[in-house]
Formats: sequence, C-alpha cells, structure tokens
Amino acid sequence: MKGSDSDRPQGQGSQTIYGLHAVRVMLQKHPERVTAVRVAERRDDPRAREIDELARRQQIPVQRVDAHILKQKLGDVAHQGVVADIRPLPSWSEDDLIEAVQAAAQASQKPLLLALDGVQDPHNLGACLRTADACGAIAVIVPRDRAAHVTPVVRKVAVGAAETTPVVAVTNLVRTLKLLKDAGLWVVGADAGGAKQPREVDLKGAVVLVLGAEGAGLRQLTRQTCDWMVRLPQLGAVESLNVSVAAGMLLYEAVRQRQA
Amino acid sequence: MKGSDSDRPQGQGSQTIYGLHAVRVMLQKHPERVTAVRVAERRDDPRAREIDELARRQQIPVQRVDAHILKQKLGDVAHQGVVADIRPLPSWSEDDLIEAVQAAAQASQKPLLLALDGVQDPHNLGACLRTADACGAIAVIVPRDRAAHVTPVVRKVAVGAAETTPVVAVTNLVRTLKLLKDAGLWVVGADAGGAKQPREVDLKGAVVLVLGAEGAGLRQLTRQTCDWMVRLPQLGAVESLNVSVAAGMLLYEAVRQRQA
Repeated sequence: MKGSDSDRPQGQGSQTIYGLHAVRVMLQKHPERVTAVRVAERRDDPRAREIDELARRQQIPVQRVDAHILKQKLGDVAHQGVVADIRPLPSWSEDDLIEAVQAAAQASQKPLLLALDGVQDPHNLGACLRTADACGAIAVIVPRDRAAHVTPVVRKVAVGAAETTPVVAVTNLVRTLKLLKDAGLWVVGADAGGAKQPREVDLKGAVVLVLGAEGAGLRQLTRQTCDWMVRLPQLGAVESLNVSVAAGMLLYEAVRQRQA
Repeated sequence: MKGSDSDRPQGQGSQTIYGLHAVRVMLQKHPERVTAVRVAERRDDPRAREIDELARRQQIPVQRVDAHILKQKLGDVAHQGVVADIRPLPSWSEDDLIEAVQAAAQASQKPLLLALDGVQDPHNLGACLRTADACGAIAVIVPRDRAAHVTPVVRKVAVGAAETTPVVAVTNLVRTLKLLKDAGLWVVGADAGGAKQPREVDLKGAVVLVLGAEGAGLRQLTRQTCDWMVRLPQLGAVESLNVSVAAGMLLYEAVRQRQA
C-alpha cells in the first residue's frame, strides 16, 4: 500500500529520519525515497552492518561519520548512530486515498484507517500519527479546515511516522467517509455515549476509526455517518480520554482482533 | 478503595475540579472531601439539579454564580457550569498502597495498578494519570528520584484525575513491585522485546502494569522483576509508542479482559 508512491508527485525538500528500526524499515519498504545514509564510525555491529548492506544493494551512498556530527545535526535524540536523508512522503489527495483503499481490497488486504474530526493540537496529531504507524494504519484523515496539519512540531512528536503514514487533508470529512463506505469500509466512531464496546464490533475487516476533537467530540454529521459508535473505558472521575490515547486504544483493539 | 481516605493525613490547601461528571463522581464517592460547589446561574436542567441535590444532602454549600466568574477563575476550560472546591487527595505512602491492595483482596476485588519506571515528562505523567483513572486503576506508582511527580502541569493534563487517583512515589520501585508480588499481584511489563502479546496474558486478576521511560524503556532490574513481558503493536516504521499511549493500550486490554 504505502509502497505505491512512484507515480505520485514527490514532496518538496528533504527529511531526516533516524534510529536503526526506522532507517531499516525505510530501506526495506521505500528504498527509492532514501537519498543518503550516515552511520556513526563507532558502530560496527550486525544491526549497523545490515543497514550498510541494505543501502549499498540499492546503490544508496553510505557515509561513516563522527557521532558528534550526528548530535550536532539532530540534537539530543536517540539516533542510535544511524541517520537517513529521504525524499518527503508524497502528499495524498482524496483520490489517492480511495485508490489506495481499492488497491488494498483487490489485494485482499483489509485496510485500517484513522480519521480525526477536528483535532487542533499538533502534539495530539503527532501522537496519533505515531500510533497509527505502529498499528499498521495506511493513512490518517483530517479535515482541511479548523484542524492541525503536518508541521515541524507534528513531525517531531511523530518520531518518523510522518514520513511513512500519509496525512490526507480533505475538504469535507463526511463526504470522504461516505466515499470510503462506498469503497467497502465500515465507519466506526468513538464517543462517551457509544452503544457498544469496541470488542463487540468487528474491526477485522476494512475499517475507518473516527475520533473526535479534544473536548467537543465528534460533530453530529460525522456521528450520523458512522456505522457503529463505540465507547471507551470511563470507570473513573474523568469524563474523557486524551484523543491520542483513545486512538491508541481503538487501534490496539483493531490489531488485537486481526491477530487473534 | 479510593473511599477509605478518612484516617490518612489530608493534603494541604484546596483544589478545584469542574465538569458535571467529575463533580458528580466526587460528590458520590468522596463527599467528605468537597468543601463547596458552584453552579452557573443559567443551568437549570436535571443534571445540574442532581449535583445540587447531592451536595445539599451532604450539607455542602452550593452557590449560584454568574458564568463569567467561573470563566475568570478557570480560564477557557469545559467546566459545563459546575465547579467544586475539594480537599486535596491525601498522599499515599508505600504502606498505604500495600494496605489498599490487601483491603481490595479481602473484598474480593482485583486491583489494577500502573507503575511508571522513570517517566520524566509531566505531560506523559498527566496523560497516564487521566487514563489510569478512566480504566479504574487504584493508583499510579512512580520512583521518587529521576521521575516526574504531581505538579500543576500534571494536574492540568490529568483534567481532574490527580484528585481521584493517587500517585505513590516510592524509594525503590523494584522493592515495591516485590512487595506487591508478595501481596498476590502479577507484575506485567511492556517492552518491544516482550515474549507475549497482551491478549495472551491473564490481566483479569490483581495486576500491576509496568511501563518504561520515554526512549530507555524498562530498567533491567525492573524487567527482571516482571512475571510477564508483553509487546505492544509495532507494525510500522516507528520503534516505540508514546508512554501514555502504551499505558492506554495495556490498561484498555486489562479492562477488556475484565469485562469480557
């Protein structure tokens, strides 16, 4: 799914990703996007050699550098001595999204999507993106207006996920959800008043999970578009969960059902 | 569990909680801690009247105030026109924690605890506290040194949970985990290298869930103290989840198993 970027417009500029796992995954899944790899001189272990070999096999230049140069460039992050320059993720239009969903269906995959109905806090968007990536979601959908978009803060909080999981900004979220329904996806929203618990709804099929904004929750039209409304735990005094935690619980439940 | 505060030292000063749900839960579970209730004049609906009645039944003064006074005091938060002044949550010592766990066992309850091994970011501690409250955890355990403690930032992020779910700061986390094992709890840690998935471990019994610090994960001695190590989803490029999201997934799984 995420691999079929070749005929989409490439984003501008260059992004940096770091860490053994993130760089290895990028070299394995999207070698065409990696323009250069830098490895700290002191690293000479099997995991670093694997990175080295993966890059060379794709004719990607690998440079050995002093660790303090990495620190200078990246600041105090857990780069593990492995850094890659990559072409930015091509931005996805609504058409790209529907196309990706249809391609997944044809390949008998069951796409998992996350939609955020008006999340304005960039930290929450970044955290949702990080979690969506970890749970294998193919994209995160946000409304174009009155919502956070991918900024440097979001990229930082997403620790690399903004380079692998596209954020699709759409003009009309309800219309996009209806298009996804037409493409065979179930739309499952979360809300304190949801009639079912997440475990009672089948999340194994093609599904888009919809979370509301901080405080306000889902807008009424969005809620009406959902096939199912589920409620997350609310056993204590607080009225709601942080949206990125709520997204984590729902995405976890989808992964659990798919792996069970 | 959380109700047996009466013979513990009360904290200093006064805290404010707001929102219909939070104030109602506090009046129902801990009326002895509520010193005053303020309700916006414009509210005259069944949910506000229920608050009014609950307070009056406990001889707690209820004041009708202009909504702009609430806004002045609280800023731009979703107070829903309902605010309460409360005595702070008494701080729990390690002894209080063990006592609470033993009391729960005698009452045939299965306590759920969250331990954070060196989480330093106050936003993450606040988000964990909010989630622990929502999932019915009876306390959150943190090491006294090199970890975030309850500060105004933590209280704000926890949106009231700091007033209902105690944070227990302990000198030696491994020793506390061993005391909890002696008291009959299973200790379940989360880590990228965990041997099992959360659904494969029984979280229905008395259990303490242990999450590691941002980046570093669990310390080796902590890991060795765990009865089970579980891994959370890692299907994408990012190497780890935000600690509050990871806590949310594990707490959700415990609630799911208990409700299934």
